[in-house]
Amino acid sequence: MADKVQIREVGMRDGLQSIADILPTETKLAWLDAEYAAGVRAIEVSSFVPPKLLPQLADAEAVVRHALTLPGLVVSALIPNSRGAERGLALGVHEMNFVLSVSDGHNRSNVRRGTDESIEDFRRVVELCREQGGPNRPRINCGLATAFGCTIEGDVDEDRVRRIANQVAEAGADGILLADTVGYGQPAAIGRVFRKIIADVAPLPVTAHFHDTRGLGLANVLAAFAAGCTAFDASLGGLGGCPYAPGATGNIVLEDTVFMFEAMGIATGIDIERLDAVRELVARALPDVTLYGAIAKAGLPRNFHPVARAA
Amino acid sequence: MADKVQIREVGMRDGLQSIADILPTETKLAWLDAEYAAGVRAIEVSSFVPPKLLPQLADAEAVVRHALTLPGLVVSALIPNSRGAERGLALGVHEMNFVLSVSDGHNRSNVRRGTDESIEDFRRVVELCREQGGPNRPRINCGLATAFGCTIEGDVDEDRVRRIANQVAEAGADGILLADTVGYGQPAAIGRVFRKIIADVAPLPVTAHFHDTRGLGLANVLAAFAAGCTAFDASLGGLGGCPYAPGATGNIVLEDTVFMFEAMGIATGIDIERLDAVRELVARALPDVTLYGAIAKAGLPRNFHPVARAA
Repeated sequence: MADKVQIREVGMRDGLQSIADILPTETKLAWLDAEYAAGVRAIEVSSFVPPKLLPQLADAEAVVRHALTLPGLVVSALIPNSRGAERGLALGVHEMNFVLSVSDGHNRSNVRRGTDESIEDFRRVVELCREQGGPNRPRINCGLATAFGCTIEGDVDEDRVRRIANQVAEAGADGILLADTVGYGQPAAIGRVFRKIIADVAPLPVTAHFHDTRGLGLANVLAAFAAGCTAFDASLGGLGGCPYAPGATGNIVLEDTVFMFEAMGIATGIDIERLDAVRELVARALPDVTLYGAIAKAGLPRNFHPVARAA
Repeated sequence: MADKVQIREVGMRDGLQSIADILPTETKLAWLDAEYAAGVRAIEVSSFVPPKLLPQLADAEAVVRHALTLPGLVVSALIPNSRGAERGLALGVHEMNFVLSVSDGHNRSNVRRGTDESIEDFRRVVELCREQGGPNRPRINCGLATAFGCTIEGDVDEDRVRRIANQVAEAGADGILLADTVGYGQPAAIGRVFRKIIADVAPLPVTAHFHDTRGLGLANVLAAFAAGCTAFDASLGGLGGCPYAPGATGNIVLEDTVFMFEAMGIATGIDIERLDAVRELVARALPDVTLYGAIAKAGLPRNFHPVARAA
């Protein structure tokens, strides 16, 4: 078992895109600064979609520019297509996350094309980045949405997930995300799929992106961790969801995920007590949005001993 | 890994004792009937404490008598002392659960004596049951509260939990419950402690009794299951808590626990869809009490295939 994990904040992208309120740019920068101060070292800061489509993320450039000033922070952004990749290349983000759905029906409902066509799109994005990016080009990750079930198709075949993971690895992915986009995942399936895909694509990193819709979020994290996964997406207060997946509620809660690992003696590098201030900042700016989280409600237990942070 | 687990309802005891409302006896009997119809086959139905202390459970005799009419239902009750054991013996319950705290401070605050004295009390209860119970005497389980941390003492030493588990096994326990009474447990510690104690006391059954105070309830269930535990306490809607543990919220949610195991292909014998009706019944009778649960809120996913129930 690993003795440390990386927990990436995705609330600034996955969270903010799913709520109507538009967070002012200065609040996003303050959020970035406060989480960075708490020790968070990987943040998906925005999405390079057309501003008309997601006005909540229209300030992607300003947010990325500020994030890139924070030393040691891995700055990532979602890209829907080659145009998004060009914006990321121009700005010099560290990582770009392309997303396609394992479920063909979900992919069609999202981007009006089949999964196979999206894999070809991904291949072209990788080629574009290799041609234009130079030696310090961004890492290009591929996220596999609906990897553990789909609101449209129901079951998603585990062999299909594995086959697609291998296809995008072969297409040149620098990393793979397995996403339980709609909160359909359960620990046994997650353990099986992560174990196989981690073995297949090694040494490519495989990140877990889970939602807590049905209460299994942290059990699923534990199952992925036991299967060898050490990189997890989460969002402050569980902000987020999938605008195209009815009933899908937020990402797993960043604070609770940090708590689980630190309580287990597994280093996250994050000072959980400093996340309170970040939460207050976001709560003040989004008064109508529910923030979730058990630790925020119950407080740290008296037997909690955080893992020492690296200097 | 086991292919089935037993999930025991403890809301009628642990849940009802922690709320001020007194549920009418007829509602308790309807609750029993409805859960039995849904396939629940183990219920802690009440507690044999003096009615003055817990008026919510003053109808213990009537509830037990009704529960004993349901074929195949394992009827258990909590007993605080020998007087409680005598009531259970007279009624013919199947199991009696004596509870002591691993944390000396918690035990003193609960029952005004040290843990060692409570172990002696337990020994006397076992002797009483052996003398008076005859060949069909109830099983006597010993619950070890605060096994994973204590609101008074903070850390609870894992070796101490193990030593006490072995002491109560030697004193004649028919089963052991490891209880995270105050929601301080985390999966790594739970895995370690269950693995060791299950090996130590085999073939005695070891039951997990967890609270979801800090969001780790189901992750902890998963860790205990991976360590070999196949018996879990839970309560409908997460009813419950510990009246002596400030800030301790409810037990893990029965519906969500059933969902996790059934989704993983592990049989619970419980028809999760029939739990909705039980929940409505309890919600109607306790309008001021919050019922928790992710499945009740989000609904079953479209990729859910319940394990076939035994005829």
